[in-house]
Amino acid sequence: MSDHAADLPAAAAALSAEDRADLVNALKDKLQLLAGNHVDVLETLAPNVRKRVEVLRDLQGQHDELETKFIEERAQLEAKYQKLYEPLYTKRYEIVNGVVEVEGITNEPVPAEDPPCNSEKGVPNFWLTAMKANDILAEEITERDEGALKYLKDIKWCKIDNPKGFKLEFYFDSNPYFKNSLLTKTYHMIEDDEPILEKAIGTKIEWNPGKSLTEKILKKKPKKGSKNAKPIIKTEKCESFFNFFNPPQVPEDLDEDDDIDDDTVEELQNLLEHDYDLGSTIRDKIIPHAVSWFTGEAAESDFEEIGDEDADDGDGEEDEDDEEEVQSKRRSKGSTR
Amino acid sequence: MSDHAADLPAAAAALSAEDRADLVNALKDKLQLLAGNHVDVLETLAPNVRKRVEVLRDLQGQHDELETKFIEERAQLEAKYQKLYEPLYTKRYEIVNGVVEVEGITNEPVPAEDPPCNSEKGVPNFWLTAMKANDILAEEITERDEGALKYLKDIKWCKIDNPKGFKLEFYFDSNPYFKNSLLTKTYHMIEDDEPILEKAIGTKIEWNPGKSLTEKILKKKPKKGSKNAKPIIKTEKCESFFNFFNPPQVPEDLDEDDDIDDDTVEELQNLLEHDYDLGSTIRDKIIPHAVSWFTGEAAESDFEEIGDEDADDGDGEEDEDDEEEVQSKRRSKGSTR
Repeated sequence: MSDHAADLPAAAAALSAEDRADLVNALKDKLQLLAGNHVDVLETLAPNVRKRVEVLRDLQGQHDELETKFIEERAQLEAKYQKLYEPLYTKRYEIVNGVVEVEGITNEPVPAEDPPCNSEKGVPNFWLTAMKANDILAEEITERDEGALKYLKDIKWCKIDNPKGFKLEFYFDSNPYFKNSLLTKTYHMIEDDEPILEKAIGTKIEWNPGKSLTEKILKKKPKKGSKNAKPIIKTEKCESFFNFFNPPQVPEDLDEDDDIDDDTVEELQNLLEHDYDLGSTIRDKIIPHAVSWFTGEAAESDFEEIGDEDADDGDGEEDEDDEEEVQSKRRSKGSTR
Repeated sequence: MSDHAADLPAAAAALSAEDRADLVNALKDKLQLLAGNHVDVLETLAPNVRKRVEVLRDLQGQHDELETKFIEERAQLEAKYQKLYEPLYTKRYEIVNGVVEVEGITNEPVPAEDPPCNSEKGVPNFWLTAMKANDILAEEITERDEGALKYLKDIKWCKIDNPKGFKLEFYFDSNPYFKNSLLTKTYHMIEDDEPILEKAIGTKIEWNPGKSLTEKILKKKPKKGSKNAKPIIKTEKCESFFNFFNPPQVPEDLDEDDDIDDDTVEELQNLLEHDYDLGSTIRDKIIPHAVSWFTGEAAESDFEEIGDEDADDGDGEEDEDDEEEVQSKRRSKGSTR
């Protein structure tokens, strides 16, 4: 019987209390090996209570099976709608980038007063404008970045499965800044259902010489009379949206031996959260509603409930930030769980 | 035609560029009144670009219709599974509270060595034990609270629709601490799909005299020779899980006139986030998986991926907290949006 230690509760019912106690002690170690530490809790329970908990565990098992089905069905539903969105995103891409022309655009001679405008293909600066309309992203985009983000042709995302997570894809036209035509950012999650970020990985950007937006080049004249007459060149990291593709790294092993203080941990935690915030804003807000961000409609609807008529006054901006901060914004998974 | 200002782009296509410019200026104010500030952006666009954006807006409209259907279907799916879980929750309630007995429990004379255990009904301290197994909730539960939380018979939750949000229900057996048999906590959300907390409301607890767990009574002997010989009694707020039912309040109107400094705003923000964290932990983790929390299995699976064999050592606890903090835990809504 000791080979079937997991059967203990049912088998033990027929034994006297004394026998039971001996048996429990004899099998305790084995049980712990088999079923992990949670057996501790069950072991401390009176036999009748333990029997009830065994039935409860069975109920929990039935629940968890249903839950697994729910998660599958929800994933199917999400996939179904992603497929339905897809052709709309393709049309959007084609119009934005001038691959197709919309109806009603005449090929009349361009009027003298605005030749540069009417000769533009597609919708210039579409993605840059859309991203800049979102407060969280706008903070990341420097003036220097704008030059490069004008070449952004499309942003897409897809789920990944092994490991779980999602991937953002940024398609760029050939441009003077870097060689890559595709920059990606992948978020690996520990859990799929209640996402916990494991790590984020970005494409290494192949900057053209002297064109990096994530580094500033500092030139310093050599001291008079120094041997080397060349200026000293130093590079320094600087703020840029493109740092998004070089996300903060979680240390591989955080053992108790590691000497990391609380402040460092908190700082890293904040950096990771911010990085995830940017990624999920692009996935959940910018990609599905890019046109509304471009026109400014999406940004306004953020203030809908607050009903602040002056929301777009430059002067009021600080106050708005406060208003937003007071609300507890939380991303919540499927709201019925 | 000025009564149909919104039709401008299509109608204007037939006009010369000069006429168009005049018309645009004449109608600009009216357009802004009609359609809000986003018209600003469209106005700045070259006519051909604006036409393309109009088509893009139509595509966005098609997307948003699909998205509305998706949100509806997802809500239906969630509701379907909530119904499937319901009978399992009911059975759990009945076993936990001794309403029904499980099979295999004999009514033999209780053995002399453990009479108090076998005479227990149901599963004593079920919800208290389950909640204490979760790190976030454990921090809220003081030793004094445990006395009252032993009387917790069930926790349920439901969606609310007007306003959007959800309600947690805590059912209590009659107890020496307070008169209420049901304590609720309701979270009102500004948006349903990407939840932004508007406010949280809790039941006012009717404490029995001298039994409040959220206040401490301080007695102070009067000074010698003072007129009044009675001790001075002061009450002071104190830490307690039951403060959950008296959540932090968001100021009703946060106008620019209000003199709230950044630190106050940040503190309130943190309090609200923490309060929402507690509520969503109870909804998403404790209620659906209470048995696994009770047995300790749920708590262990939190560490599964970290694979720290010593996770349950008392000494290791601080290190574990650090490990957890380094991960960017974010609740994310439906992962396909």
